[in-house]
Amino acid sequence: MTWQRPDGRQVNELRPVSFEMDFTRFAAGSVLARCGNTQVLCTASIEAGVPPFLKDSGRGWLTAEYRMLPGATPQRQRRELTKLSGRTQEIQRLIGRSLRSTLNFAALGERTITIDADVLQADAGTRTTSITGGYVALKQALNKLLATGELSELPLANEVAAISVGIVEGQALLDLQYEEDVAAAVDFNVVLNGNLDIIEVQGTAEEGSFSRSQMNQLLDLAEQGIQDLFVQQRQMFT
Amino acid sequence: MTWQRPDGRQVNELRPVSFEMDFTRFAAGSVLARCGNTQVLCTASIEAGVPPFLKDSGRGWLTAEYRMLPGATPQRQRRELTKLSGRTQEIQRLIGRSLRSTLNFAALGERTITIDADVLQADAGTRTTSITGGYVALKQALNKLLATGELSELPLANEVAAISVGIVEGQALLDLQYEEDVAAAVDFNVVLNGNLDIIEVQGTAEEGSFSRSQMNQLLDLAEQGIQDLFVQQRQMFT
Amino acid sequence: MTWQRPDGRQVNELRPVSFEMDFTRFAAGSVLARCGNTQVLCTASIEAGVPPFLKDSGRGWLTAEYRMLPGATPQRQRRELTKLSGRTQEIQRLIGRSLRSTLNFAALGERTITIDADVLQADAGTRTTSITGGYVALKQALNKLLATGELSELPLANEVAAISVGIVEGQALLDLQYEEDVAAAVDFNVVLNGNLDIIEVQGTAEEGSFSRSQMNQLLDLAEQGIQDLFVQQRQMFT
Amino acid sequence: MTWQRPDGRQVNELRPVSFEMDFTRFAAGSVLARCGNTQVLCTASIEAGVPPFLKDSGRGWLTAEYRMLPGATPQRQRRELTKLSGRTQEIQRLIGRSLRSTLNFAALGERTITIDADVLQADAGTRTTSITGGYVALKQALNKLLATGELSELPLANEVAAISVGIVEGQALLDLQYEEDVAAAVDFNVVLNGNLDIIEVQGTAEEGSFSRSQMNQLLDLAEQGIQDLFVQQRQMFT
Amino acid sequence: MTWQRPDGRQVNELRPVSFEMDFTRFAAGSVLARCGNTQVLCTASIEAGVPPFLKDSGRGWLTAEYRMLPGATPQRQRRELTKLSGRTQEIQRLIGRSLRSTLNFAALGERTITIDADVLQADAGTRTTSITGGYVALKQALNKLLATGELSELPLANEVAAISVGIVEGQALLDLQYEEDVAAAVDFNVVLNGNLDIIEVQGTAEEGSFSRSQMNQLLDLAEQGIQDLFVQQRQMFT
Amino acid sequence: MTWQRPDGRQVNELRPVSFEMDFTRFAAGSVLARCGNTQVLCTASIEAGVPPFLKDSGRGWLTAEYRMLPGATPQRQRRELTKLSGRTQEIQRLIGRSLRSTLNFAALGERTITIDADVLQADAGTRTTSITGGYVALKQALNKLLATGELSELPLANEVAAISVGIVEGQALLDLQYEEDVAAAVDFNVVLNGNLDIIEVQGTAEEGSFSRSQMNQLLDLAEQGIQDLFVQQRQMFT
Repeated sequence: MTWQRPDGRQVNELRPVSFEMDFTRFAAGSVLARCGNTQVLCTASIEAGVPPFLKDSGRGWLTAEYRMLPGATPQRQRRELTKLSGRTQEIQRLIGRSLRSTLNFAALGERTITIDADVLQADAGTRTTSITGGYVALKQALNKLLATGELSELPLANEVAAISVGIVEGQALLDLQYEEDVAAAVDFNVVLNGNLDIIEVQGTAEEGSFSRSQMNQLLDLAEQGIQDLFVQQRQMFT
Repeated sequence: MTWQRPDGRQVNELRPVSFEMDFTRFAAGSVLARCGNTQVLCTASIEAGVPPFLKDSGRGWLTAEYRMLPGATPQRQRRELTKLSGRTQEIQRLIGRSLRSTLNFAALGERTITIDADVLQADAGTRTTSITGGYVALKQALNKLLATGELSELPLANEVAAISVGIVEGQALLDLQYEEDVAAAVDFNVVLNGNLDIIEVQGTAEEGSFSRSQMNQLLDLAEQGIQDLFVQQRQMFT
Repeated sequence: MTWQRPDGRQVNELRPVSFEMDFTRFAAGSVLARCGNTQVLCTASIEAGVPPFLKDSGRGWLTAEYRMLPGATPQRQRRELTKLSGRTQEIQRLIGRSLRSTLNFAALGERTITIDADVLQADAGTRTTSITGGYVALKQALNKLLATGELSELPLANEVAAISVGIVEGQALLDLQYEEDVAAAVDFNVVLNGNLDIIEVQGTAEEGSFSRSQMNQLLDLAEQGIQDLFVQQRQMFT
Repeated sequence: MTWQRPDGRQVNELRPVSFEMDFTRFAAGSVLARCGNTQVLCTASIEAGVPPFLKDSGRGWLTAEYRMLPGATPQRQRRELTKLSGRTQEIQRLIGRSLRSTLNFAALGERTITIDADVLQADAGTRTTSITGGYVALKQALNKLLATGELSELPLANEVAAISVGIVEGQALLDLQYEEDVAAAVDFNVVLNGNLDIIEVQGTAEEGSFSRSQMNQLLDLAEQGIQDLFVQQRQMFT
Repeated sequence: MTWQRPDGRQVNELRPVSFEMDFTRFAAGSVLARCGNTQVLCTASIEAGVPPFLKDSGRGWLTAEYRMLPGATPQRQRRELTKLSGRTQEIQRLIGRSLRSTLNFAALGERTITIDADVLQADAGTRTTSITGGYVALKQALNKLLATGELSELPLANEVAAISVGIVEGQALLDLQYEEDVAAAVDFNVVLNGNLDIIEVQGTAEEGSFSRSQMNQLLDLAEQGIQDLFVQQRQMFT
Repeated sequence: MTWQRPDGRQVNELRPVSFEMDFTRFAAGSVLARCGNTQVLCTASIEAGVPPFLKDSGRGWLTAEYRMLPGATPQRQRRELTKLSGRTQEIQRLIGRSLRSTLNFAALGERTITIDADVLQADAGTRTTSITGGYVALKQALNKLLATGELSELPLANEVAAISVGIVEGQALLDLQYEEDVAAAVDFNVVLNGNLDIIEVQGTAEEGSFSRSQMNQLLDLAEQGIQDLFVQQRQMFT
């Protein structure tokens, strides 16, 4: 007996993805990224200056913040006030590393980019949607600097996108939604660049363990899904 | 010489107002409230139980949280992490008091409603937009409880809406946008109920002082604007 | 049936007010302000330098802190340790704005004045007593700088005083004490300058709502009471 | 050449001491303790219940809090907000231990007494003044419980008082004031009970070291001074 | 030109590993785990009771804490006081997940095990040494409960060990020490169980990216190293 | 009936003491100090620069941090995360004062030494062991600077060691271990320098009080014990 996907998708099918650019108008880059019912508002802000460890290096920096709004889930979640949970910190560190992998920091110069990923609605895959949407907001913001002449070349060395894959009742699945995420025995987040090389892979056995061949099956699914995401990202800039 | 409003409005004219209901789908009530360029996502969540001071009273409670997303302004603003600023606390206390004034807590029973007002884009008037939009989210959430039979009557005793008024270069103005807010010598926030009686009035001379007659002029403008807001709120529930 | 004031006062009668100057001797200004059973120790300290946003502006600044000692009330209140409550922050922001309205910051030069209002005993009206007493401590401290020649003119542009008014059982009352504060349906704090113009007005319906004419009645009472407070403040400097 | 005391006292002479009882009226015990220019407002509050480790033991507890108001010193001191300094914690722990030594906790029953020592003016000796004055506030509060019949016997097993002694320019001195405290090479705080037995002794060489005989000389001075303090404490209850 | 390992090891060679059991004697399990110059004191404490979400489930829980002592590195590192860094939280969550994978929580019953991993000396690989050593401390503590009859069977379902692998100058290496860790372009942490199935894999491209075949090469090295670690763990219990 | 020491020691007998130097190898000074079952890892780190209050004074500084590892006691103790307990702060301030008394800060120059005392195993006497062991780590670190020529003379003005003494069932005892510490009616910590002059003495009656003659008896014991500790410290540097 195999797992019936709640929304009737094929095992290798993404949820509907969309990027609504300029969702807000004050941030340099602003995209409402939707992946099924997951909605993440990704904004990119660029400021002059860099953290102390890069002072006078001529190189820029990128950092990311991630939060879930309290009303993003059926059961309201408290805001993280006095300290961030380990989960939130892990996620925003992952978003930052993934997006930094695309940047040519020497071409950016001593500027700091902040990506804010605020989850308006959560139906699993919020961290991967933040990376994929964050890249769109990042490119939009950099394009503006190019248009105004503040930058003479686009400081992007590569593209980046991310997706989750997992094993539910023995079945490898692409792009888990909430019920699948809860039921998954194995949970992977995969971040690839435009050449489909790996930037980051994180796989956890939520119960039991998994074999090398299962891992390879999951990575195959992820490669396939991320190729689709790159197609959609590129459409935003044509 | 009088003040020319940057967006060409009359002194007694509101900015375009809209309420996009069900902007997100997991919270019991969810409204994207827009007032000109100001956008606030208002969600209402209802949970069983009340704070300790109301235990076994048979009465419910409502509390509100307010935050501005970092990318809501042209200059990115840091998140308030370890502690809330005085401004944020004042605003969320005001939202809470204003919305509590509409509720029949005995009819609500021992439930706690949380209104989350997250400012996606800020162009002045965020606290009054939070109140006016928060009321819509609140009513939507209560209607759902009525529809499911969890409540036998709508526990709303009245309506509520709010607007800012102020004096810029000697001119009393309705519904200040950002440049006007910065230039205002006097700044008022007015919260009225459906009978146009006052729930809360807060007026501050940012520079100099103001007279009783100026105050009355401002309250007249506010009454007029809030009547328009009630019209729009009511259209959401017809 | 009308409200009988617990201490037998007329509706437009202040509680006994006194200012004990030099209550402590190390702060530049120090006044124990008493308003009935409410006692607030107000001290004014002046330091060289200003916050970053005023650096090299030639202008000074004033900030205020407010706390209630744990033993100030019949039921001991915990100290606010890791963070200030919204109420405390609102009050100290109000005290700061009110006292800043009196200052000529260019004449003060790049100095920072801190007003500390520590409530030794609380019987309602602590925030308004802090403002009225804080003005006395402020003027005393500035007089010392004038006397030593550190200032060539007194950098005070106006006077300021504050009082609470409210509606209890339908009756408008001046200067509520504790039982009245608890019973009030409407609660106003009014801050006026020496010309009886308004610096700040904050009115809240604790239950129900209030009309414009009730509001005007309350402001009339406040004007009357504040005139008495100015008489007493002036006696401290003759 | 010997040290001339700034206020002309003999080496074994206390500063003028006074206890102003009922300085505030809402706390169960309230004393403004003055020792020279040092002024500490000591209040005692009594609540039903005990900390978890004493639950159902039939025994009570006493705890103490100590703070210095910002205006207590010529140079304004910041409030300790997010965390208490080591100095403040040491002092309030010492006050608590010292006053607990006087109590018969079985006779007190499951009540918690909180002593708040708020320094209004600081001229050295604030911790010892807090102990000596705290005892007066404690006894006053317990007397009230005896008067109302809530207690059938006074749960005090002994008296307690404290004083500082130190060595300045080779001279052993009783009850250091500020300039002496700063100049002291050795600094002792001594807490004795009504039999002149030792409850606590803390001696620190601020510079260099000290001998056993110097220590004994200091303890002799402390005994003498504390005998005077007991005389004054007892006069408050006759 | 290939990378010469600073300590002359083969690419597939572990550093010397040792487990000093009973290094301290008060904790139920206590092991000083050494992997080259990396030293981690792992202790296991067992307490009755479980977190709220497991109350009355009959099942136990395990949680882990990880810290680095300030003197563990040549340059002293500040203690994390008011909040934990994202790195520390990621590590202690990884340790917890890895060790939980070995436990039969129903057989453990409602007990909570805490693994403390305190790094006394850090030369890379502290998180994997914490897992491998933490398993030894865990088993030692459980054996004691078995010996005393508090448990009737050992609630261990499997073994667990972890190692780091990485790519330095194009060369895949097992068990990186500090200079290699700094120079690595790709960094993997691999956690396997006794069947060499995967519990967790985390791989990050510190610069550039990596291919699927490089990933497989690294996992081969990790498998080989972890087999050696299991041999050494097992020797502690024979 | 007299107290039988649980480990059979004479009343004036120390527990076995040892200092294991270079226990870790990255810190400038590193000593595992053992006193009976109490084990404290003391490391000394030296950095260029001083706190602001010593800037450009030509003088150095020393500060100390003290922590107990969670597994150091039979019952696991929570880590102090958001704030340090009063006890911890008292102890680390005492360690700092004691070790500063030995230093010639002018000869040290503008360097800051940090002593970290991490208790691996606690059986009473952790603060005194931290001081005695901290001195060994300090001297080791300074010797290295002398050997490398960074210092031209050893900036140590004296030696320091510390011990606890107390009264258990009327009997004065040297070097209390855990059961004795719990049972003690009087508890003293004594810090002496190489001339057996007093640096610090802290004595507390945990129950009842104590007389001057008892105090002298305790100080005699402490002197005797500390002489033995100096012998052992000196052996580490011969």
